[in-house]
Order: sequence, then C-alpha cells, then structure tokens
Amino acid sequence: MSDIQRHHSDQRLSRLVVHGNTAYLAGLTADDRKKDMKGQTAEILAKIDKLLAEAGSSKSRILSATIWITDMRDKAKMDEAWIAWADAKNLPARACVEARLGSPDTLVEIMVQAAK
Amino acid sequence: MSDIQRHHSDQRLSRLVVHGNTAYLAGLTADDRKKDMKGQTAEILAKIDKLLAEAGSSKSRILSATIWITDMRDKAKMDEAWIAWADAKNLPARACVEARLGSPDTLVEIMVQAAK
Amino acid sequence: MSDIQRHHSDQRLSRLVVHGNTAYLAGLTADDRKKDMKGQTAEILAKIDKLLAEAGSSKSRILSATIWITDMRDKAKMDEAWIAWADAKNLPARACVEARLGSPDTLVEIMVQAAK
Repeated sequence: MSDIQRHHSDQRLSRLVVHGNTAYLAGLTADDRKKDMKGQTAEILAKIDKLLAEAGSSKSRILSATIWITDMRDKAKMDEAWIAWADAKNLPARACVEARLGSPDTLVEIMVQAAK
Repeated sequence: MSDIQRHHSDQRLSRLVVHGNTAYLAGLTADDRKKDMKGQTAEILAKIDKLLAEAGSSKSRILSATIWITDMRDKAKMDEAWIAWADAKNLPARACVEARLGSPDTLVEIMVQAAK
Repeated sequence: MSDIQRHHSDQRLSRLVVHGNTAYLAGLTADDRKKDMKGQTAEILAKIDKLLAEAGSSKSRILSATIWITDMRDKAKMDEAWIAWADAKNLPARACVEARLGSPDTLVEIMVQAAK
C-alpha cells in the first residue's frame, strides 16, 4: 500500500489526498448553483466536513484555506456562512481573492489543507 | 494542549498557524492602503517577518509563497520590494498571479508557508 | 547543510524547494508562448516531471496542484494535456481558477506540492 491515500478520484483529480499527518482537499464547489453565495458556501463547507471526517480530521484541524469568489462585493455573504460554520477557537490561516471559476454560476470555490 | 497552535485569530481566520515543523500564514495585506504597490508589499513583508519570528522561523525558511496583485503591470514594483527583502540564498517556491482583492485599494496580498 | 534544499533559484524564487518529505515547486509557465493552451500545459507538465525527478519524486506522488488559466473557456484544452499526462491511479487534489498571468501570452501557470 502506498504511503499516500487518494479518495474520490475522477479523471483529473482526487478530492481527498492524505499523506503523513496532512490531508489535502481539492478546490470544492457547490453542486446546486442556483444557490446564492451564502448557500453555495454552506454546501461546500458541508462537503469539507465529510471529506475531513473520512481522513480522521475535522474543521477544527484545518491549517490553511484558500477561498476564491467570483465577486468581491459578495465576500460578506461568503463570510456569513464561513463564520456560522467555522470552529471559532480553531481558525485556519486563510486567503480570499477574486477569480472567475469553472462555470459562470459557480460563485465560490474553497481548498483546504488540514492536520489529521 | 493541542498539537496545532493558532495565533492572532479574529472572527474568521488565524494569521499564524503552527503544526509540526510547518508554519502557515494567512493571506496578508497592508494596513496603509494609500501606499503604492512597492510600499504595500514592503509593509506586508514586515508583517511576515514578525509572524515568522513568533513561530521560531524566519524569511530564510519560507518554503512557498503565493502572491496576488491587482494589476500585473505593477509586478515589477512588487518584485522590487520582494527582492530587497528576500534572503537571496534561500528563496522560496513562488507564484504570482493577478486577482482583485478584498478592497479596491488593496494592491497586493501574500500568503506563505515556512519551516520552523 | 540546511534541512531545506533549494534548487534552480533566480533573483526572486526557487523553482524547487525540498523540506522533510515534501517538495514545493514554483508556479511554472511555458517558455514557448506561441503554443496554445494545450501546448503550454504540456510544456509545463514536462518541467514538473524534471523538477520532481530531481527531488526524488514523480507525478505519481503529487499531493496538490493549483492551476491558473487566463480564460476559463479554454479549460478543456488544459485538461486534455493534464489527463494525457497525469497518473490516472494517483491523482492529486487540484484547483483550477482563472487569473491574468505574468505576460499576456502566458495562458496557464501550475504550482504543485509533492511527496518525496
């Protein structure tokens, strides 16, 4: 068995990669793109919870997060969902910048790295 | 005590997270946004120095850096401040891309990962 | 000797940094910018192969990858080159977002982190 575990792979990427004591998640987006920025963020954060649980980790053990949003004017809505979800006593390093994403109605994408 | 140390946390993020022998810094921006690209970059790099010192690390031990600038035509000005600051014998892996940032007068944001 | 090895350094960055069991590569772009998205991607991926080999790693041991492309409408062309190259059984966590890059004819930039 490899020392690297890869889960939920498609043709291009694995959504979860575990090596040593670190879990690397893919950049995740919402499936329901009719949702607004807050709704899409909440959906992504729920996906992160599931993937981290598979790795024996949790949101309280996220080390760093990169957040891309399509419109910086909607950052407050992303943050609403983020703050409601995050473990206030165990917040990761984080960057949030603007970028066009995989489809026009994809409003936010989040990629995290966590300790197991 | 947790095996993850988190410092300078606000509501959303920690500016410094230390796990094992790695320090993860948040995406940092300048407080004085009247400064130009070079000035904002220098201010951010001084913040990085302080945070890395807290982690028992230094600019000579940065592993990778991601730099977002709002206008690629100003990259040379960012690089001036970067080159003046960086340890020429211990340069990190680095990427620099264009992105709109948290406020219109935020010209540059830098996120680094360093060895302790 | 330092516990951090840095290779292919210029004035600003090292293209390859190795610390512990992890290799950090710089954001890489194609030298031949007359190539289209697929061609530039293939050129970058060949560079990644070489650098990872120097670190005693390989594409089968990439943990995470960030891909910036200048036009999201060309993502399929980038993915063609990526899928042709990637080890289908060992795919990294990956994010792909749009960003303007270092020169107008630079169409794609890729930054990876790999296990040794």
